[in-house]
Amino acid sequence: MNLDWNIKRALLSVSDKTGIVELANSLIENGCEIISTGGTKRKLEEAGITVTDISKVTGNPEAFGGRMKTISFQIESALLFDREKDKQEANSLNIDEIDLVVCNLYPFKKVLESGGNFEELIENIDIGGPTMLRAAAKNFKYVTVITNPSDYDELQKQMKENDGKISYDYRKQMMVKAFNHTADYDSLIAQTMDKEIGQSSLRLSFKEGYDLRYGENSHQQAKFYKEQDSNGGLFGLKFLHGKALSFNNILDINGAIESISSCDKVACAVVKHSNPCGLAEGFDQKQVLELAWAGDPISAFGSIIAFNTKLELETVKFFNLDHENRAERKFIEVVIAPEISEEALDYLKTHKNLRVLEFDHSKLKNFKDIRYLNGSLLVQDKDLKLFDKIDLPTKTKIDLEQDQKLIEFGLKSIQNIKSNSISIVRKKDNSLQLLGMGAGQPNRLIASKMAIEKCKENLAKEYKGDDFPAYQKEELANCILISDAFFPFPDNVVLAAKHGITKIIQPGGSIKDQTVIDACDQNDIAMAFTGIRHFKH
Amino acid sequence: MNLDWNIKRALLSVSDKTGIVELANSLIENGCEIISTGGTKRKLEEAGITVTDISKVTGNPEAFGGRMKTISFQIESALLFDREKDKQEANSLNIDEIDLVVCNLYPFKKVLESGGNFEELIENIDIGGPTMLRAAAKNFKYVTVITNPSDYDELQKQMKENDGKISYDYRKQMMVKAFNHTADYDSLIAQTMDKEIGQSSLRLSFKEGYDLRYGENSHQQAKFYKEQDSNGGLFGLKFLHGKALSFNNILDINGAIESISSCDKVACAVVKHSNPCGLAEGFDQKQVLELAWAGDPISAFGSIIAFNTKLELETVKFFNLDHENRAERKFIEVVIAPEISEEALDYLKTHKNLRVLEFDHSKLKNFKDIRYLNGSLLVQDKDLKLFDKIDLPTKTKIDLEQDQKLIEFGLKSIQNIKSNSISIVRKKDNSLQLLGMGAGQPNRLIASKMAIEKCKENLAKEYKGDDFPAYQKEELANCILISDAFFPFPDNVVLAAKHGITKIIQPGGSIKDQTVIDACDQNDIAMAFTGIRHFKH
Repeated sequence: MNLDWNIKRALLSVSDKTGIVELANSLIENGCEIISTGGTKRKLEEAGITVTDISKVTGNPEAFGGRMKTISFQIESALLFDREKDKQEANSLNIDEIDLVVCNLYPFKKVLESGGNFEELIENIDIGGPTMLRAAAKNFKYVTVITNPSDYDELQKQMKENDGKISYDYRKQMMVKAFNHTADYDSLIAQTMDKEIGQSSLRLSFKEGYDLRYGENSHQQAKFYKEQDSNGGLFGLKFLHGKALSFNNILDINGAIESISSCDKVACAVVKHSNPCGLAEGFDQKQVLELAWAGDPISAFGSIIAFNTKLELETVKFFNLDHENRAERKFIEVVIAPEISEEALDYLKTHKNLRVLEFDHSKLKNFKDIRYLNGSLLVQDKDLKLFDKIDLPTKTKIDLEQDQKLIEFGLKSIQNIKSNSISIVRKKDNSLQLLGMGAGQPNRLIASKMAIEKCKENLAKEYKGDDFPAYQKEELANCILISDAFFPFPDNVVLAAKHGITKIIQPGGSIKDQTVIDACDQNDIAMAFTGIRHFKH
Repeated sequence: MNLDWNIKRALLSVSDKTGIVELANSLIENGCEIISTGGTKRKLEEAGITVTDISKVTGNPEAFGGRMKTISFQIESALLFDREKDKQEANSLNIDEIDLVVCNLYPFKKVLESGGNFEELIENIDIGGPTMLRAAAKNFKYVTVITNPSDYDELQKQMKENDGKISYDYRKQMMVKAFNHTADYDSLIAQTMDKEIGQSSLRLSFKEGYDLRYGENSHQQAKFYKEQDSNGGLFGLKFLHGKALSFNNILDINGAIESISSCDKVACAVVKHSNPCGLAEGFDQKQVLELAWAGDPISAFGSIIAFNTKLELETVKFFNLDHENRAERKFIEVVIAPEISEEALDYLKTHKNLRVLEFDHSKLKNFKDIRYLNGSLLVQDKDLKLFDKIDLPTKTKIDLEQDQKLIEFGLKSIQNIKSNSISIVRKKDNSLQLLGMGAGQPNRLIASKMAIEKCKENLAKEYKGDDFPAYQKEELANCILISDAFFPFPDNVVLAAKHGITKIIQPGGSIKDQTVIDACDQNDIAMAFTGIRHFKH
């Protein structure tokens, strides 16, 4: 049978009046009777539209300060009865079909967000609205249900193009929207009422999910979802070129963007397995890329590279993607920036598989850090504070004024490296560079060793002169070593000193702090305590 | 004013009939009139209870195959009107109070889980039930609403102890339950209908949240929640002794349990910063702990230690917690096992701060791996497959029969170490041991270096004889080196060979596989391909 129906009788009852007059007019044009109530009725009548008062249908008055308007045997029967099986019964009960419900609910969310008190919240829980919506949605085979003014256009279009008829598919889609609407509505009420009685609950809703080719590994199936009522974060990134994103790409892009998003100048992060192995901040984009790349030029191959400023051709030429010698080309997985110039994009397209993406990194701010753990959930504020107050407990003092920017940059780097972590940063040609880091170590001393080793390797690569030991000494003496957590023993200090490090930043707070300070003093190291740990797992 | 009320008139309409007769009887004893409908009415009448048919109250028949039973101006008015403000209006409209609604909804979930078709699902969407529940809940100031048989006892208790009166606080709690119930109900409908039209959505709900002292770091606030409709995972662990759990403890415990939960024999994991730095599997619990500890005896201090079998006194004595010399005591953060013997617990209590927990690790199975990323969500199956089919492409072959258990153990270890990772495992005295690992490295070669370095360190610590080089050679030759992903170059093979490794397991699949095979053959290394990568981030 043909399941496309005309709307002969519609019930309009909306708190958001946007577009309701236009919708009513096109319903009238299609020969539809309009039933309405309260403010909606007044609005339509002011526009000269003839409206049947709902009390004529229900036989009841609007009662109890508006708490009872629509709920009735007559209205819900008109929505719910089966147009085939129940036709006769409906006739005998004097029930006429209602074919369309347009309803949006009392603005509970708005009242909540504007700080309404408990009584106001309770009063703004809609009872009649959800009942109509749910009844109409259940009977979507015959009834159209609309919850959002943004769907009026499509309804009008359907009527116009289809001789007043509404298609089954459209009604089905609107049914799904309606149940999502009532689910969202009661979810917010439930969470709010939980809070009211001192219970913590959290309801998260994700939409528009799609299958990824696979998960972290090819034997794992995976999906990617957008969080409802949020900007959707990376779900909304703009894909300009290249192969589809993988699960690991998305994870790494998140890490890369978090790494650059706190930098206020021109910044670039080179990320591998979620950790920034390269990070630089300065004024010249190309130089910043070069310095970030130089943080670990081996791992940088196959990396995710994120920028916080519009990406220019001059910068991306660094990748040598058009070099005739393949070995000279710097192959990477993903390039992402808030904007990419047309010339830069054309150049990046030289590499067929390279994913090129635009994304405004500020969109990842203002979220909580949420970890799902097999049936439980950890939720925390993000780590956004760099330091508390800086103490200088050692004899040799760090020049806080001169090194302020470098200290901040170092702390930003350590915020984004997996614990235990050590990073070593330096000033280089007016920019700031992560010269070496040690990540994800059970043992802090090993993280220090790795960071120092990486620095030496990188210095050797950049030095072209003939007195490398002197160069290395000078450069390391100007670096700052940053630890994400306190040193429980002086061993890290001794190691750092042995390799020529002269400046250390760490949170402090160990019962062995004094021993660590003594070790610094014995080794002419200037150490600062920040009071703020930066564990990240 | 006193907000404790008697229930004079109750509406009972339940699909789950558990306890409904007993409840009705105690309502009757308290002089309450009972209104009911359909199956509930029949059940009560069979038990000899006098029931008012709902159609007497509504003035309408049950209609349309049961789609219309309760919804009416009369019923919802009786639930919704304000007992103070609207009293007169209610009188003039002949509306009498209904003070209690007991209702549970059409079993949509049950029909869904039993594979009901679309029409059956639609028919099992309750319209009248949620309307009554929501109306009663909105007016909880006067009306009691009950959605679950498990709450009948408390209702009966209140009536008994309070002269038939129901307290405001109880009504408020039941209101919160009712809105949670309708939110859950429509959430499941919405998600199911989304799927029906080919849209993916996911609604997650978390309950019973409580504040942790702080998050990963002290400047971050944090909460811990239980997932609804799940066993709650670590939320349900049994706390036997020690300081309260921290955010990082919970994260690490999750890692520790995942590390041991795939081991079928007696196993122990020593975890630091989410990575197992020690792991062993065998037959004797104490020996297994010793071997796990020996995987990184420095990092093991302050670690989380998980067992998969009942923890015995003999085992925990290894920690030397009662040693008179503090330096001999092995201080750790958390011990967790499915069961802990009384004697072991008494011994562990020697350490005041040590957290001692019981938890059945099998409870963390069957969940998805879910990552929340600032407004988007990645969901994937867990990595549960160890290998696909094992290829032996090198001239020297691994003896798959002899080494089968060790290979499986090595693959389990690598599944739980952050990428890039290398683990080196061996057989030791009838047990299997993670002898060294490199975790979380941007560069695989560095992970190999770290793993080999750790093995040598550990061998040096255990050897008491006078020909260490010979011992080291022999032990390393018997080890297997496992890589979580393929080798893109032969450099890892060359490094491994240089240090005396003779057996390698890796997934294979690089375009350079042949070069890597050649390097193995040149170095007499036996290598196997598993076809399965084990990235973990």
